[in-house]
Amino acid sequence: MNQIIPFSKERMLSGDRVTGKLHLGHYAGSLHNRVKLQSRYDTLVMLANVQALTTHFDHPENISRHLREITLDYLAAGLDPNESTIFIQSMVPEIAELTVYFSMFVTVNSLRHNPTIKAESGNRNLGELYYGFLGYPVSQTADIVFCKATVIPVGEDQLPHLELTRKLIRRFNELYRPVFPEPQAIISEMPRLVGTDGNAKMSKSLGNTIPLDCTEEELAFKIRKAVTDPARVHKDDPGHPEICPVFSYHQAFRSQEADKIQEACQMGSIGCTECKRCLFKDLNLMLEPMRERRAMYNRRPDDIEDILKTGTRRAQELAKETLGEVREAMGLDYFNHNQVN
Amino acid sequence: MNQIIPFSKERMLSGDRVTGKLHLGHYAGSLHNRVKLQSRYDTLVMLANVQALTTHFDHPENISRHLREITLDYLAAGLDPNESTIFIQSMVPEIAELTVYFSMFVTVNSLRHNPTIKAESGNRNLGELYYGFLGYPVSQTADIVFCKATVIPVGEDQLPHLELTRKLIRRFNELYRPVFPEPQAIISEMPRLVGTDGNAKMSKSLGNTIPLDCTEEELAFKIRKAVTDPARVHKDDPGHPEICPVFSYHQAFRSQEADKIQEACQMGSIGCTECKRCLFKDLNLMLEPMRERRAMYNRRPDDIEDILKTGTRRAQELAKETLGEVREAMGLDYFNHNQVN
Repeated sequence: MNQIIPFSKERMLSGDRVTGKLHLGHYAGSLHNRVKLQSRYDTLVMLANVQALTTHFDHPENISRHLREITLDYLAAGLDPNESTIFIQSMVPEIAELTVYFSMFVTVNSLRHNPTIKAESGNRNLGELYYGFLGYPVSQTADIVFCKATVIPVGEDQLPHLELTRKLIRRFNELYRPVFPEPQAIISEMPRLVGTDGNAKMSKSLGNTIPLDCTEEELAFKIRKAVTDPARVHKDDPGHPEICPVFSYHQAFRSQEADKIQEACQMGSIGCTECKRCLFKDLNLMLEPMRERRAMYNRRPDDIEDILKTGTRRAQELAKETLGEVREAMGLDYFNHNQVN
Repeated sequence: MNQIIPFSKERMLSGDRVTGKLHLGHYAGSLHNRVKLQSRYDTLVMLANVQALTTHFDHPENISRHLREITLDYLAAGLDPNESTIFIQSMVPEIAELTVYFSMFVTVNSLRHNPTIKAESGNRNLGELYYGFLGYPVSQTADIVFCKATVIPVGEDQLPHLELTRKLIRRFNELYRPVFPEPQAIISEMPRLVGTDGNAKMSKSLGNTIPLDCTEEELAFKIRKAVTDPARVHKDDPGHPEICPVFSYHQAFRSQEADKIQEACQMGSIGCTECKRCLFKDLNLMLEPMRERRAMYNRRPDDIEDILKTGTRRAQELAKETLGEVREAMGLDYFNHNQVN
């Protein structure tokens, strides 16, 4: 059994639903920030397999496989297991307990008006939603409070979620005792990535992603197929980079060069093929060290298991501590802190 | 640490929300059946302190006090701690875990149409309900499945609840693996008790109850004040027992005599005072042994603590076993049954 490292710095929580391997959209939205900040904060990264069930409850068999894929993505992207605590959500059942407690004082209305719930539920009536799906923001609050996280790296679109969490935390602290700090967002400086097909969202289900684990060949193919300014027929036509997905990737991943490319595109002095070649080169440079780390960990499956076990154990310790305080605050501790033996 | 007794017979689950001491309504609805059946089944009786939070989350300080009062009510009413496992809901966190899992595949509509949710929420809109309150039927399902109960002693009004539970259990068994048996109701042969004021519901908040712990004097007072047929002015007026709360208690608690009293009342040959005197005598006879047992346990507070600890420990063992199966069925078990050490 490895030693459990005590937490001393401010705590940062983030995570991903375990619904498939990660892509550049995840990286831009939050993952690059986690990697960058992991030494500044005590970093917890959660494999959200319970939250994956909100939409994938009928195919749980995939979750176990995705769990290892995403862990590889994390390690490949540069999360250092000595800095970051990677853990499995379902193995910290205190999160479910907190979900139940926090669900007592949040109204259905405050959940249904959450923009993410609205967006994901499409045109369906409130009544047709699954109860667990509607409660997603409560569950996210439980994720944040179980470890008393104070900083949350998010994309801008996640801010309303965090606002509801802050509101629920204030409510808990007022009702019982000030147990939880209010978390702050660390907003990604990268914009939300569009899909390679120009769709506003890069998403596996739309088939418009660039996976973090793609080979050089796959990357070249993805970029070659990517949509550009449709009005531009000849390479010396003036382009409209502001509507071009490929240009948006330039902006996101090589902001220093982006201005030059923008100008050249608008003047018609750089064609799409050349522009894509630049993007490929840069993205490939970024992905190459990830491929190396991935290959290394792929040769050491036991290490991945150890990393997950150690991380989960740390999270479990934290959760136990927090729940002790929660039960005391709520008057739910009996027999000298619930000791029944 | 006392020895944990293995369960071998069919399992019966029941319980009460920890919102105040029990009264004759509770006894008629379910408690007398538990006492009667406790040796036939492996009997689990849950102190539902988490479910008490659905409506009492802002005053949790009372729950701890009520917990001991209700335990005394149970023991006084004749629950034998050697036959019945009395346990505290919040100390079996697996119930919260199961609540979260079952919430994934139940729609908001199937919850809002539940008659109890409808009745308790009055005229409020769905959106104004608390999320946890709306999920009450999911939480009750979790209570039933954590111990794989197959028989549930309920009043007739609870049947729709149980029907939803059975539906959710079938859904789970189809989605994953047949882990849970479908529970059957054991319906109380006693009717739902009206209040002493004639209100359709005997309820502490209406001040129309006869508490199980009432003294002889309190009982006499409660019965003296009880509403009878309002059309009956003189004691030899013909009465209408079918609308008289006092007669309904006769029916519930001394069905053998009730026919004679009905006839006498209708003929005007027994007055309300005499009729109430009979009821007092019979109820007092029923409550007297409860008072004796209560006095005995009141002198042994350590025994009550032991009973709760032993019961809770048994429930915890059962819950761990069930959750092992659930995680396996749902593909949520990792590292050789989630062992991280």
